[in-house]
Amino acid sequence: MSGVDGERYVVGVDYGTLSGRALVVRVRDGAEVGTAVHAYRHGVLEAQLPDGGPALPPDWALQDPEDYRDVLRRAVPAALADAGVDPSRVIGIGTDFTACTVLPTLADGTPLCEVPELRHRPHAWVKLWKHHAAQPHADRINALAHERNEPWIGRYGGRISAEWQFAKGLQLLEEDPEVYRRAERFVEAADWIVWQLCDAETRNVSTAGYKGIRQDGRYPSTDFLRALDPGFADFATKLDGPLLPLGERAGPLSARAAAWTGLPAGIAVAVGNVDAHVTAAAAQALEPGRMVAIMGTSTCHVVNGARPAEVPGMCGVVDGGVSAGAWGHEAGQSGVGDIFGWFVEQAAPAGLASHERLTELAAGQPVGAHGLIALDWWNGNRSLLVNHDLSGMIVGLTLATRPQDVYRALLESTAFGTRMIIEAFVEAGVPVDDLVVAGGLTSNRLLMQIYADVTNRPLGIIGSAQGPALGSAIHAAVAAGAYPNVHRASEAMGRVDEGVYQPDPDNVRAYDALYAEYRTLHDHFGRGGDDVMLRLRAIRNAAVAAPGEAVLEVVG
Amino acid sequence: MSGVDGERYVVGVDYGTLSGRALVVRVRDGAEVGTAVHAYRHGVLEAQLPDGGPALPPDWALQDPEDYRDVLRRAVPAALADAGVDPSRVIGIGTDFTACTVLPTLADGTPLCEVPELRHRPHAWVKLWKHHAAQPHADRINALAHERNEPWIGRYGGRISAEWQFAKGLQLLEEDPEVYRRAERFVEAADWIVWQLCDAETRNVSTAGYKGIRQDGRYPSTDFLRALDPGFADFATKLDGPLLPLGERAGPLSARAAAWTGLPAGIAVAVGNVDAHVTAAAAQALEPGRMVAIMGTSTCHVVNGARPAEVPGMCGVVDGGVSAGAWGHEAGQSGVGDIFGWFVEQAAPAGLASHERLTELAAGQPVGAHGLIALDWWNGNRSLLVNHDLSGMIVGLTLATRPQDVYRALLESTAFGTRMIIEAFVEAGVPVDDLVVAGGLTSNRLLMQIYADVTNRPLGIIGSAQGPALGSAIHAAVAAGAYPNVHRASEAMGRVDEGVYQPDPDNVRAYDALYAEYRTLHDHFGRGGDDVMLRLRAIRNAAVAAPGEAVLEVVG
Repeated sequence: MSGVDGERYVVGVDYGTLSGRALVVRVRDGAEVGTAVHAYRHGVLEAQLPDGGPALPPDWALQDPEDYRDVLRRAVPAALADAGVDPSRVIGIGTDFTACTVLPTLADGTPLCEVPELRHRPHAWVKLWKHHAAQPHADRINALAHERNEPWIGRYGGRISAEWQFAKGLQLLEEDPEVYRRAERFVEAADWIVWQLCDAETRNVSTAGYKGIRQDGRYPSTDFLRALDPGFADFATKLDGPLLPLGERAGPLSARAAAWTGLPAGIAVAVGNVDAHVTAAAAQALEPGRMVAIMGTSTCHVVNGARPAEVPGMCGVVDGGVSAGAWGHEAGQSGVGDIFGWFVEQAAPAGLASHERLTELAAGQPVGAHGLIALDWWNGNRSLLVNHDLSGMIVGLTLATRPQDVYRALLESTAFGTRMIIEAFVEAGVPVDDLVVAGGLTSNRLLMQIYADVTNRPLGIIGSAQGPALGSAIHAAVAAGAYPNVHRASEAMGRVDEGVYQPDPDNVRAYDALYAEYRTLHDHFGRGGDDVMLRLRAIRNAAVAAPGEAVLEVVG
Repeated sequence: MSGVDGERYVVGVDYGTLSGRALVVRVRDGAEVGTAVHAYRHGVLEAQLPDGGPALPPDWALQDPEDYRDVLRRAVPAALADAGVDPSRVIGIGTDFTACTVLPTLADGTPLCEVPELRHRPHAWVKLWKHHAAQPHADRINALAHERNEPWIGRYGGRISAEWQFAKGLQLLEEDPEVYRRAERFVEAADWIVWQLCDAETRNVSTAGYKGIRQDGRYPSTDFLRALDPGFADFATKLDGPLLPLGERAGPLSARAAAWTGLPAGIAVAVGNVDAHVTAAAAQALEPGRMVAIMGTSTCHVVNGARPAEVPGMCGVVDGGVSAGAWGHEAGQSGVGDIFGWFVEQAAPAGLASHERLTELAAGQPVGAHGLIALDWWNGNRSLLVNHDLSGMIVGLTLATRPQDVYRALLESTAFGTRMIIEAFVEAGVPVDDLVVAGGLTSNRLLMQIYADVTNRPLGIIGSAQGPALGSAIHAAVAAGAYPNVHRASEAMGRVDEGVYQPDPDNVRAYDALYAEYRTLHDHFGRGGDDVMLRLRAIRNAAVAAPGEAVLEVVG
């Protein structure tokens, strides 16, 4: 097997929402030689804590950190076995995580939910990225930031998210001050898992910047935090820790983690990272001008730039946030594959309820022949408008409209959404010359061609089905010293099929006309022309909250 | 059987788009004692003439008048047999027809398509109401009418339809002048079938008014017609004939028609009439303030008023057009049951593809709980906006939206459309105090309650499943002298369950908020705020018309 040939390997571990995946990768060329997945035992805690107790409120989403350790115990050894690689050949391990996924701990990294007397307190657990119960707190942070003209708010498109560290931290303080007080540290799961691997606390510049509002070397001021809530004045001290660039070595693998994983103690552990961002390295897309779109249930867009651009409605821009030496710009669409999935499950008639069949039928028609435009806001709008109360719309329906017509219009709507984001970047001075797509949706050739045609840009496809895990392995190789930096490692170990889809000039022209319609509708419904979507959401919430038996039927 | 009890009977014959129905009705009380249907052998001719020949152009829709005679030969005797009524007990026959369905004939009523040398000429055949190929001609008529300030154009909401006599006649003249010249008469099928029954030409005031632009005792002037096309100057002379009010006796049943039907020669034949309008008599809805909505694939609204009101975008107002002594106002929605049918066939997943199941699931939710608003223009907009290029829209879609939510939103959208029409009538001085609904959709109790709640008016239901045929029978009874007028006959023979659905005050309030949203969207997309629907239609038409194999797939 590989053990006899003198090759060296690294392990990348990708922590997703429901499971963790380990991937064993050859250092020399990035070849993926073995993999394994471990599903979290407790998945997402949305109803109750693992030991029972009262129901969690709406919009809560927690996790159990022990599930993360189990990935190290189960998936890493299984991936090594799958690869048939002698663990002594492995020189480093790297990880990536969903973000902002964050937990309160003691000074030694012990999660508060593992402190017996706090185990029944929901706020002691990991808050998953999609814990959305801190919206009121985010709203207050945003209002105060604008009131005080805080310089950092522009770096986040003018609006920080309810998902991020400060919103979740403020919720913790105000809803469970006792747990807040006990939280000596407040740690991104991305950094916590690294702490577990090498027994030393580090913080990565990416989540510190994108999720922790760390800009130009500092967190929001004590004054600002005190103005939010006097008890919050010390919050940044719970975040501050040894800050390291991406690709650095956080420390040597501890004996305890070596026992969990079967890897040699002392090998390099890379600094924590974010799932979407490591994918840029895997896709050889670190150069300014090349945007990576990780397309799955939702889409995350990442593009490096030479300078920080403040783009209204973007997620954030962070110095070294994607790779050292560049400003990483991030944006996103909150519903993409989820919308196509909704259509197949909820709106496609018998015989057509499959992506393959609908795509096949939709592929045959000329651009514009279905006469439809959709706004892709089934799950709200994450970038540009940054409003989760916006909703989806379809216009142009007739008695002759067929399922494949609507399906194609939905594919196109997400491409129009991506074009809106690209144009916002370009207008703000961040060039976007071509796209590289990663994620599960790359297998839909019609969708990829539509994206090339709508954006009028060549479209490359990542050469790996495990982009994040490969990206983490690349960072592990750098941390281990096998490459001088992430760029060089990405060149050697990353994979992309460049320009697989080229824009078709006729389609580009045809889509320009449809995109103009999308943009008009986008601004009308998203920028105050008609706030009907927001009012319908309020009417819906009030109707569902009203008492009576019929209501139970609706929310049940 | 009935023959021994001294009862008298009448026969009503309802000519629909695909078939004709005969109904035998007891004169004393309107009891329906027997019925039979005959489907037209040639149905709708949209592709070719019955003897073959070249393809008909798009938007053409023709019929064969012999199919109408076959209804007399087949359905009437079958209905008599079904009733077990001795034909000698029958004192009259009345008919109603789709409109404007019109044909060119010789002076003796012989259809030109039955003249051997003209049989292969498409323009020699009956043009069905939904023949839509005369839109350019209608456009010219409308433009000229406004240019010349013709007084009659206001009676048609400012716009005559491409379906009507003058548009179809102008198309005939300009596309086949030879057939135009041979057409000594140009006759509504409603009047032609009466001509067949009693061998004498008559014209009814209803189609002369609604479809023939006859107002205040005259047709459009010769000057006007000459300005459209010099050859068209004589067109009104082809229309003008003995004009009779509704419910009058057109003549005695001829020996030939007696032989076809098995009815006694010499019995009364009622003047021709329109399917939607005769239903008002069947539903006891002739009093001003009571609107009849005939709800099927589309909806026709009819309401009498004491004075003519010119309502922008309405179909028309005609003196005696629904019943003598009142001004009959007509409006319509071009897609209603058709939209619900589209949803079940094209957009409902397996297991939910039935009106019954979707209605059952939709009924359980509070008003507004689905968070959706739809514009009901899947088949364009017939009244208020009068634009067949408008299309359907849904807003408020989320990943949590279920099929029953969309279905309910579609039901509601048609109710909002009806409320728009009612409010336009009321604003123009035509009171609408309550509604009576007829047609196939009356069986959906949820839909009926929604209409009561949205319009905030009590809703009665016609007491007959055969409203038009019963209405024709009522007119036959009047023509035969059994009642002094249609009002009295309607009181005795018509049937309505009054106020079956009462508005629920909470629902009324909740729907007011949703209707305000509908109205805003209606005006934005329908009145120039954003003409995206019209542009999408133009883009679609251009895309479909472009050459290439993919196009054939689309239009095939």
